[in-house]
Amino acid sequence: MKRLKTIDWADDGVVIIDQTRLPGELLYRRIDDVEAMFHAIRELRVRGAPAIGIAAAFGCCLSIADFPEHGSAHDLLILLEKNGDFLADARPTAVNLVWAVNRMKKRARELARSSTIAAMKQGLHAEAVAILEEDRRMGRSIGEHGARLLSDVSSILTHCNAGGLATAEYGTALAPVYVAAEQGKVFTVYADETRPLLQGARITAFELQQAGIPVILMCDNMAATVMAQGKVQAAIVGADRIAANGDTANKIGTYGVALLAKAHRLPFYVAAPSSTFDLNCPTGKGIPIEEREAEEITCGFGKRTAPDNVAVFNPAFDVTPAELISAFVTERGVVRPPFTETIKKVVGGGRDGGGSLLIR
Amino acid sequence: MKRLKTIDWADDGVVIIDQTRLPGELLYRRIDDVEAMFHAIRELRVRGAPAIGIAAAFGCCLSIADFPEHGSAHDLLILLEKNGDFLADARPTAVNLVWAVNRMKKRARELARSSTIAAMKQGLHAEAVAILEEDRRMGRSIGEHGARLLSDVSSILTHCNAGGLATAEYGTALAPVYVAAEQGKVFTVYADETRPLLQGARITAFELQQAGIPVILMCDNMAATVMAQGKVQAAIVGADRIAANGDTANKIGTYGVALLAKAHRLPFYVAAPSSTFDLNCPTGKGIPIEEREAEEITCGFGKRTAPDNVAVFNPAFDVTPAELISAFVTERGVVRPPFTETIKKVVGGGRDGGGSLLIR
Repeated sequence: MKRLKTIDWADDGVVIIDQTRLPGELLYRRIDDVEAMFHAIRELRVRGAPAIGIAAAFGCCLSIADFPEHGSAHDLLILLEKNGDFLADARPTAVNLVWAVNRMKKRARELARSSTIAAMKQGLHAEAVAILEEDRRMGRSIGEHGARLLSDVSSILTHCNAGGLATAEYGTALAPVYVAAEQGKVFTVYADETRPLLQGARITAFELQQAGIPVILMCDNMAATVMAQGKVQAAIVGADRIAANGDTANKIGTYGVALLAKAHRLPFYVAAPSSTFDLNCPTGKGIPIEEREAEEITCGFGKRTAPDNVAVFNPAFDVTPAELISAFVTERGVVRPPFTETIKKVVGGGRDGGGSLLIR
Repeated sequence: MKRLKTIDWADDGVVIIDQTRLPGELLYRRIDDVEAMFHAIRELRVRGAPAIGIAAAFGCCLSIADFPEHGSAHDLLILLEKNGDFLADARPTAVNLVWAVNRMKKRARELARSSTIAAMKQGLHAEAVAILEEDRRMGRSIGEHGARLLSDVSSILTHCNAGGLATAEYGTALAPVYVAAEQGKVFTVYADETRPLLQGARITAFELQQAGIPVILMCDNMAATVMAQGKVQAAIVGADRIAANGDTANKIGTYGVALLAKAHRLPFYVAAPSSTFDLNCPTGKGIPIEEREAEEITCGFGKRTAPDNVAVFNPAFDVTPAELISAFVTERGVVRPPFTETIKKVVGGGRDGGGSLLIR
């Protein structure tokens, strides 16, 4: 099975797949400085909550690459914190971005105590690579837990792209599909195209097709019919930020899919690494929602499709209330209600705190 | 207030607004023969269930325009029936198309008994004009009933285009908005863009903007958020065919909007002339659903937005079960549950059978 490398470090720079060019072109783009990384994140050239966490970590490394060997550790720390905060502002909703930046800052503070500048740079690079490698392992683990959870299901609906191209490799929502395929089970995936930016049509359909997984593309407003006709037995999506009570911010349209799944008595799953849970955010009300430009809706296809000067509502995300979510699939296991308790257990244990804390 | 003339007869031909050119261009296109009318209907240059009924009636007139004055009434009848059936096949879901063709055939049979060829042509032309004029009056009447029904509402959500451009003038779902505006009340309309063909973005937003009504355009998958945030107090849509039990076929995505309205405890209204009810169709299961080309989704706007050869699901309509519909707004009044009884009353009375049969 062919899985693409969304983001990687190569020759003192970062190489990403430019996702704004998909599906027409598989373009690998080299990024050499922190400004370019900021814009790559903001313009969605690299996207997906886990992937932009990795991108921010690498961006931190790029931002200190030219720091002089004879400089002070304190100055390097200040530079890294400033650039980290700059990167963290590229998009407001995904918690992984802030999480990755904070992890890099923390590691920098540790290293500053006793290391040379060269060793600090090396240590920070190792930390960013660790974030990427952990993400790969997390995707695999989410896939294993998810494949078991979906053992009675043969056809799923997904929204946006929470696949390999949103992460380092396996993805989150699509990880169970890839792991199942390795185990010889082939899912059929109904992919919402996901307006306005069509991540479902451009990216999910592309990566599943590349991997040889049957995918059926449709418009967002066809999901209700697909469910009513019994074409899918579950819906599974990714997440950009999950509050302590389980309320989940994800791509606009997710909340609607969750309501439709409930109306058709289908399970609705959210797949995300434990770093997506934000215990500092008690409920979904505390999650900032990015609003984007009107032009994404009025001329998204390279052609103006709405009258000039029309007013537009264009939130990039919505919040799905916890009560619509059947379970979370994390790298540590499947998290079921009551979420206020179970989430605290899975996240409270520390990020690397001991594998599968929760038994299915 | 500026309302556009969707379709009209002029100088022995038909003039339509070519709706595939909106919103970029307000192009009036002349149609001179039945083949051209068939293609105008099939390619959605003229669209909306009531408007394509009018188009088919005019198409019937065009199809006999060159019939020789010395020919037999029987032959003219056969020609009209053949061309009527041809037009009725242009699109499968809207009942108004078949209804208008049947009405023209019936009138032709009446006229054939005693009229000259010239008088038959004249009589049929008068019948087509009558269909158009009745549609105008029906829109106005739907608007009056709807404006009363929505008297406590200031902001509505609509899907697709059931406005003036779907009919001769006032529209169905938007008729209450236009009538209210004449009465000095200004609604705010949230318009779903309505993928794949973007009738909401291209047509609803255009005609409301032309009329000076506040309209806010959004993607279909934002409707749930608009409802959750209390931005609208009701949803109202048109219909292509309504079964005897109230099950309603309308543009794909309508069923989803109805489910979302229910989840947010908002009323969901369907506005349609009584000719849209099909008593020969007991439930929604009997309504044929048109499936359209994959390219509408994969390269809808002159740009390919999905990988080559991807499988696509593209139903043009869906069926909303009667139990999700709060009421129908017809030219004869507001029809409330139990629909199996009330629909029979409103439609059974004959199409011109006496004004508002049902009191709100």
